[in-house]
This record gives sequence, C-alpha cells and structure tokens, in this order.
Amino acid sequence: MVRIAACQLSLNIEDTEYCVSQALDSISKAISNNAEIIVLPELSTSGYCFQNISEVQTSSQSIGGEFVVKCVQLAKENDVVIVVGMNIENDSKYWNASIVIDNSGVVGWYAKAHLFGDEGKFFTPGEKAPLVVNTSKGRIATMICYDIEFSEWVRLAMLQGAQLLALPTNWPEIGQTKTSPPMEVIRVQAAASQNKMVIAAADRCTTERGQNWVSSSVITNFEGVIEALADSTINSKTQIIYAEVELPMDTSITDKNDVRKDRRPSLYSSILDK
Amino acid sequence: MVRIAACQLSLNIEDTEYCVSQALDSISKAISNNAEIIVLPELSTSGYCFQNISEVQTSSQSIGGEFVVKCVQLAKENDVVIVVGMNIENDSKYWNASIVIDNSGVVGWYAKAHLFGDEGKFFTPGEKAPLVVNTSKGRIATMICYDIEFSEWVRLAMLQGAQLLALPTNWPEIGQTKTSPPMEVIRVQAAASQNKMVIAAADRCTTERGQNWVSSSVITNFEGVIEALADSTINSKTQIIYAEVELPMDTSITDKNDVRKDRRPSLYSSILDK
Repeated sequence: MVRIAACQLSLNIEDTEYCVSQALDSISKAISNNAEIIVLPELSTSGYCFQNISEVQTSSQSIGGEFVVKCVQLAKENDVVIVVGMNIENDSKYWNASIVIDNSGVVGWYAKAHLFGDEGKFFTPGEKAPLVVNTSKGRIATMICYDIEFSEWVRLAMLQGAQLLALPTNWPEIGQTKTSPPMEVIRVQAAASQNKMVIAAADRCTTERGQNWVSSSVITNFEGVIEALADSTINSKTQIIYAEVELPMDTSITDKNDVRKDRRPSLYSSILDK
Repeated sequence: MVRIAACQLSLNIEDTEYCVSQALDSISKAISNNAEIIVLPELSTSGYCFQNISEVQTSSQSIGGEFVVKCVQLAKENDVVIVVGMNIENDSKYWNASIVIDNSGVVGWYAKAHLFGDEGKFFTPGEKAPLVVNTSKGRIATMICYDIEFSEWVRLAMLQGAQLLALPTNWPEIGQTKTSPPMEVIRVQAAASQNKMVIAAADRCTTERGQNWVSSSVITNFEGVIEALADSTINSKTQIIYAEVELPMDTSITDKNDVRKDRRPSLYSSILDK
C-alpha cells in the first residue's frame, strides 16, 4: 500500500509568489500527514490564465531553479515522490510541464502534448510520450489535464508499465452538463479501470480572472473506484485529499483476461492513424 | 432527436426458443413505445453460458434465417433500426456477432474482436474494425461487450464518423467492486464523452447456469451523461429503457477544441503497437 496525496490549490497568475509558497507549503503539509506520493495541479507555480507571453516568461521556472531545488530537498529529506505541474522554461521555450522528483532528485519531466484552448499561444506542445519512470515509490506515469481525454495517451502509459498515473490538472468550467461526480472524474475512473492503474488527479480551485473551475481532485484505485474525492463544488477551496492504495503488479483482470494482453494491436494501427 | 430503446432481456442457453421469441417481442414492444433505434443484448437469441460446441451450433442463426427475416420485416414495416447481438453461423464458423438492420434490410454485421473468458472456445474472433454504417436513423457503430474496454476500438468507431454506438452486452458479475453506477456504466459514459458519440448499451439479466450479471443497460448522450439507466441490481429483471437524444453533428467540444482534430496520431502509432 502507498499513501497518496492530491493537493487542490488556489492558483492565480496575478500572485505567482503566493502560488510558489502555497505549492511548497502543501507538499510539507502532505508530508506531515504521511503522504508518500504527492501530486500538485497543472501550472501550480504560476496560475493558468495568461494574457500575454510576458506573463508566461516572468512566471516560468527552470529545472534547476529555486523551486525545484526546494522540492528535491523535501523529497530527499522525507523519502517522498513529488509530481508538480509547472510552467517550465527550457531551451528558450516555455512548456506546460509536469516534473517528477524522488529521493534521488529530478527523475524526469514531461511537456503536455495535447494543448487546450489558448494554451498553444503560450506553450510549445510536447512531442514525447507520457513520461513513465521508476521512482522510490513505484513506476509512475505523468501527463497533464486534457491529455487524459486521449485514450491513446493513457494506453502509452500502460504499455510502458505504469502502476500509477499522476495527473496535474486545471479542469475549466466551460458549460459542460453538471454530473455527480463531474464527467472529468468519470473519465479518470474509466481510464484507471481500462488500464488497470491507480490515478491521482490534482485539480485547482478558486476563480482566476473570471474563469471558473471544476475543482474535483480525485484518487482512484486500479479498478477505477474512487478512494478520495475533493469537496468539489465549482471553484471549491484549497484542500488536500489522501488515499492509501495498492499499486497493481500486472494488468490481469480475471484468470483468463488481461487488459494489456487482450489488446489486438495489429487491428488498430492501420486505421487509428488516419 | 431520436428515440432509442435498449432492451434488457433474460437469456438462457437452456431455453433458446424463449430467447428468440422474447427478442422479437421486445422489438415489437419498443416499436409500440415509439422507439426508432432498438438495441438488444449480446447473444440475444441463444444465451451465453455454453458448455460445449454442440450448444453453439444448435443455437446459431444464419444471416438469412427466420429470426433475421422477421427483424427485417419489423424494421421495414415500422421504419426502425434494430441492432441485435446474436450467435451467427457463417462460412461454417460461429461468430459472437451484432447485426444492424434498417428499413432497407440487413445493413451489415460485426463479429466481436475481443473475446472474453471462454468465448474463444466457441467463437471465431472477428478480424474487422467496428462496423460503422449509415442507416435511416443516423450513422451507427456497433461492437460487443468487452470490445468497449479497448479504447482503441471506440476510437475506430469515432474515426469512421459514428454518431451512435450500439453495444449489445452481457456484463458478467465477476467479483468486481460494486459502485453506483457500476464501473461498466462509467466506462460507457467516458467512451461517449471522449468520442462525442451517443452510446446505447443493452445488457442482459437473470442468472444463467449459476452466472450472475451486472444487468445495467444504459443510454448516454454524446457528453456521456446518463439519459436512461436500467434498474440495475445484480441479475435484475427484463425491462426496456428509453431515451430521446440528439445525435452529434461533429466532434467539437468547444469553439477551439475537437476530440477528433486534437488527436496527435503521429505520436501514437510508433509506440501503441508494441
């Protein structure tokens, strides 16, 4: 069993200093509550609602920057895994990224491949598959927000052997029909169930420049069953949810069936890529 | 708007005569309740729990056989679309099939590609993509039960322009954690939402040779929102659920995003088929 925390944070591009300190504080709080894997939202250190590229630049962090160094220190001192969605500047480009840190330091980082809404105005789309890495707490995949709606993308994580998918997200309220739980959570449940992997989605909360948010962080087990769900009224409030879950050892679902082995890739490839 | 019926039927290999008459009666009843698209469960005319190949042979139907002829007659007389899961004998092989019929006759049939449990002992696995056909009531896809857990397969239906997926199913109770709605329904909701298509799943009910069933027929709109759900206690009872839904005209989800156009197939192909 591993104890997971998903931190639902209040993000605002107009107060990035607060975003950064809140991110570090939430990690410390999760550690004090015995979390072993800690997931933070998309763009945790900057906020989401950029109006111009200058805001992207000034709110960006480098991989070797002060924030990441502090996260590494927390991870080493406490033997935890930290996954943070953040605005990363690298190679003179800006990336909507997710960084994975464990007791050995930065294990890797991922750039969002499926950009949503206006994100393409500010960020370079990622060109690499979902990051899947061995950490001190298991084999962990990461992708970001809209990525998970592309079932092919979740499959790539499963095919690389992920036991847990850490999903930093900022789920916008865009007039979708309200359901309980929200459809964003239902999609997470199905992705977990169909790929036999634990999923921890850290969403954000509170209005930002007039934009509302679903605010529905969730942790499921590898059957897709909800183990922890944020108090998820629209925009909601800052909170950390926790769950103790078992990581899957394989992709079998019965003694005769296996969601990985039962795939028939020869039937998929020719048509899928039209 | 189109009015859809999903018929949840009591199936039993030990009384195939009843299965056949019940299937026809349920179609007539759905017609009398103004249904325009009528979906029946997997293996509606035979039952599911075969013990030997002889039972498969004696309970099979041909495409030109009496049952299909009666369905065609009902479809022509009433201008409805009928999708039936059935045991089809064709080319001296047995197929766990789904047949699509409209006012023009048999539009096509599909053989289940992802066989579950012991099905491979009795049926030849299909080698063709999900069937997607134009009917008098819209562009309709069909696949069967376990197929829908393969998100690649639902994508193939979407990529072929399906507006509605008709899913004959026999969802077994195999010790999965009970959720409300069942995880089988949650997977249907996510598939609808991620592919912007209506889904009508017709499940079966009542114990068969000691096997229990989820018994949770469901119709969702193209956002994945449940529009009709069977009274779905385990094994449940015979019933027809109805919903009037709008068929999608495209795959857009906002003015800037589209679940089909936002795919990045060049990133999927190389890795997906490992």
